[in-house]
Amino acid sequence: MDKRDGMNYAPQGKPDPVCKPGDFIFAAVGLDHGHIYGMSNGLIEAGATLKWVYDPDPEKAAAFAKRYPQVKIAESEQQVLQDPEVQMVAGAAIPALRCDLGLRVMDHGKDYFTDKAPFTTLEQLERARQKCAETGLKYAVYYSERLHVESAVHAGALIKDGAIGRVLQVIGLGPHRLNAPSRPQWFFEKDQYGGILIDIGSHQIEQFLYYADCKDAEVVSSRVANYSYKDQYPELEDFGDANLVGDNGATNYFRVDWYTPDGLSTWGDGRTLILGTDGYIELRKYVDIGRKMGGDQLYLVNNEGEFHFSLRGKVGYPFFGQLILDCLNRTENAMTQEHAFKAAELCLIAQEKAVRIE
Amino acid sequence: MDKRDGMNYAPQGKPDPVCKPGDFIFAAVGLDHGHIYGMSNGLIEAGATLKWVYDPDPEKAAAFAKRYPQVKIAESEQQVLQDPEVQMVAGAAIPALRCDLGLRVMDHGKDYFTDKAPFTTLEQLERARQKCAETGLKYAVYYSERLHVESAVHAGALIKDGAIGRVLQVIGLGPHRLNAPSRPQWFFEKDQYGGILIDIGSHQIEQFLYYADCKDAEVVSSRVANYSYKDQYPELEDFGDANLVGDNGATNYFRVDWYTPDGLSTWGDGRTLILGTDGYIELRKYVDIGRKMGGDQLYLVNNEGEFHFSLRGKVGYPFFGQLILDCLNRTENAMTQEHAFKAAELCLIAQEKAVRIE
Repeated sequence: MDKRDGMNYAPQGKPDPVCKPGDFIFAAVGLDHGHIYGMSNGLIEAGATLKWVYDPDPEKAAAFAKRYPQVKIAESEQQVLQDPEVQMVAGAAIPALRCDLGLRVMDHGKDYFTDKAPFTTLEQLERARQKCAETGLKYAVYYSERLHVESAVHAGALIKDGAIGRVLQVIGLGPHRLNAPSRPQWFFEKDQYGGILIDIGSHQIEQFLYYADCKDAEVVSSRVANYSYKDQYPELEDFGDANLVGDNGATNYFRVDWYTPDGLSTWGDGRTLILGTDGYIELRKYVDIGRKMGGDQLYLVNNEGEFHFSLRGKVGYPFFGQLILDCLNRTENAMTQEHAFKAAELCLIAQEKAVRIE
Repeated sequence: MDKRDGMNYAPQGKPDPVCKPGDFIFAAVGLDHGHIYGMSNGLIEAGATLKWVYDPDPEKAAAFAKRYPQVKIAESEQQVLQDPEVQMVAGAAIPALRCDLGLRVMDHGKDYFTDKAPFTTLEQLERARQKCAETGLKYAVYYSERLHVESAVHAGALIKDGAIGRVLQVIGLGPHRLNAPSRPQWFFEKDQYGGILIDIGSHQIEQFLYYADCKDAEVVSSRVANYSYKDQYPELEDFGDANLVGDNGATNYFRVDWYTPDGLSTWGDGRTLILGTDGYIELRKYVDIGRKMGGDQLYLVNNEGEFHFSLRGKVGYPFFGQLILDCLNRTENAMTQEHAFKAAELCLIAQEKAVRIE
């Protein structure tokens, strides 16, 4: 795992199985984004059994099978979808294809777990909403910048405990390293990746809705730019931001960009700043710049004082076990379907409304 | 000096006089905001001679004279304005009265140096613009959160040196401690203080224009709220934010609020985050939370690496000496009049456009 490369950043945690081997069987289909490794790690650590992998590109499937020697390489997607043992398909396809894959998965009676962003158009979202309603199956989303970050998980617990009172605002900064030569062609084609507010903005809106406990929000304004790559990658957006207000009066501002400088020790200096009536929390998720102490640093200031928690290895990733149990028990403890779809919807709206700046 | 109390936070630097005693004589008139102490410190350290103090409240004048034993207490504002030796009047009157004081000062042929925000209405700004044009005198503004913060001064130097390339965005966070019992009545009256985006927002817009090198900007959206004090202080705004785009395509987001928690070791965790094409700078101006190292911590990440500079006592406050020389030589090296007015204008517009949230 190279921490300087965000696309192939796949957190590993401690095994904490919620079920016995064979109780919950999943397959990996669509390996276009490296997030499939983080998704698979999370599920396996939580007790899921990985049975199949399939990708139209045999090299991708072979690389995956090398990492997970227990997996069988399927000859076709159909072979996976037609296996009645498979309960869930996890996929990190090209963003524009994620919905179609999900609908095929659900048509075969299986739950779907996709990398973010789950959609690139509102029409896809509408089709997925209908399919969920018709089938009762899950279209779960890997919003990794909260679900797979221990400091981000702990921030949710602190807020629920009332450590900062009522949440008034969430500010999110999601810089990423472009690392252009490592990126596949689809990454630079707008129809394929959807736009920066959809691609990496989806993490940010999900965090806002979660930490501020909003059911819905309005996109007040949003912007995108391609400041530096107009000639080289005309369809890339290297900067985006948006401004939301939640249905409970909490506000959100986030910025996403591809401007991580070469000298940063990790792929991005992701931050979340959560202001409450009685204190605030700052997450330095992947690096605490200028200090050699790794990521997952949580700072809490409230009426009692200034506190610093170094959380790597101490919190774990409860989402994956909850998701498995939700699939087995048909509950919604990991994340409600409506929350996953609402975050996706708002990032689609933010992208659609975005003013282009130069 | 109590660093937990923002209203009476008056930085002291090392004496670095640009002129001889008596070369530049100023008076302090209007002591409503404690910033007058920071303004006076800055001018005296840079070589100015403090001759008079006047305030309608004799207690305020007496307290000032105790801090600066060299000063004479004037019997009236007229006594100060009619003294031909006085070259500048420095004032921190109630915000709504700052412009009228300035116009009287300029009508007596003297330069004016006011605490921010310099205006509470666009009509005041227009009158001051006209007076400057007519007289050639200065209406200088104490935007202390950049001018009187060593890390903020150094950030400007780094940017000019190209340390982070083209500036794409400035994010400013300006939380302040409410400390309600210490505040005068005018602080809670909207007509008097102008609104949160004018009062403490003015610092933020000034920093954006300066660091991003914009001559002008558009206020895209802005918001204010009184989340917590509706009953107690109905005219207070305890939260505000705004979203700007500069004439060169750089963007700005800032948040200001009165939510510094009791447990913070200083009056506010002021931050500035400046994103460039080749790196970024973060200022932790008054505190580096969770660390016992004081403020003025500057973090720089660029293509060469991650760097941390602890700058307290190492940079000084060149603005004040430049301002004195600008007055003596009729130059504009400290800050152009147009920049000072543009920052004020944009915060007036942001306040006027602000959507109220609950």
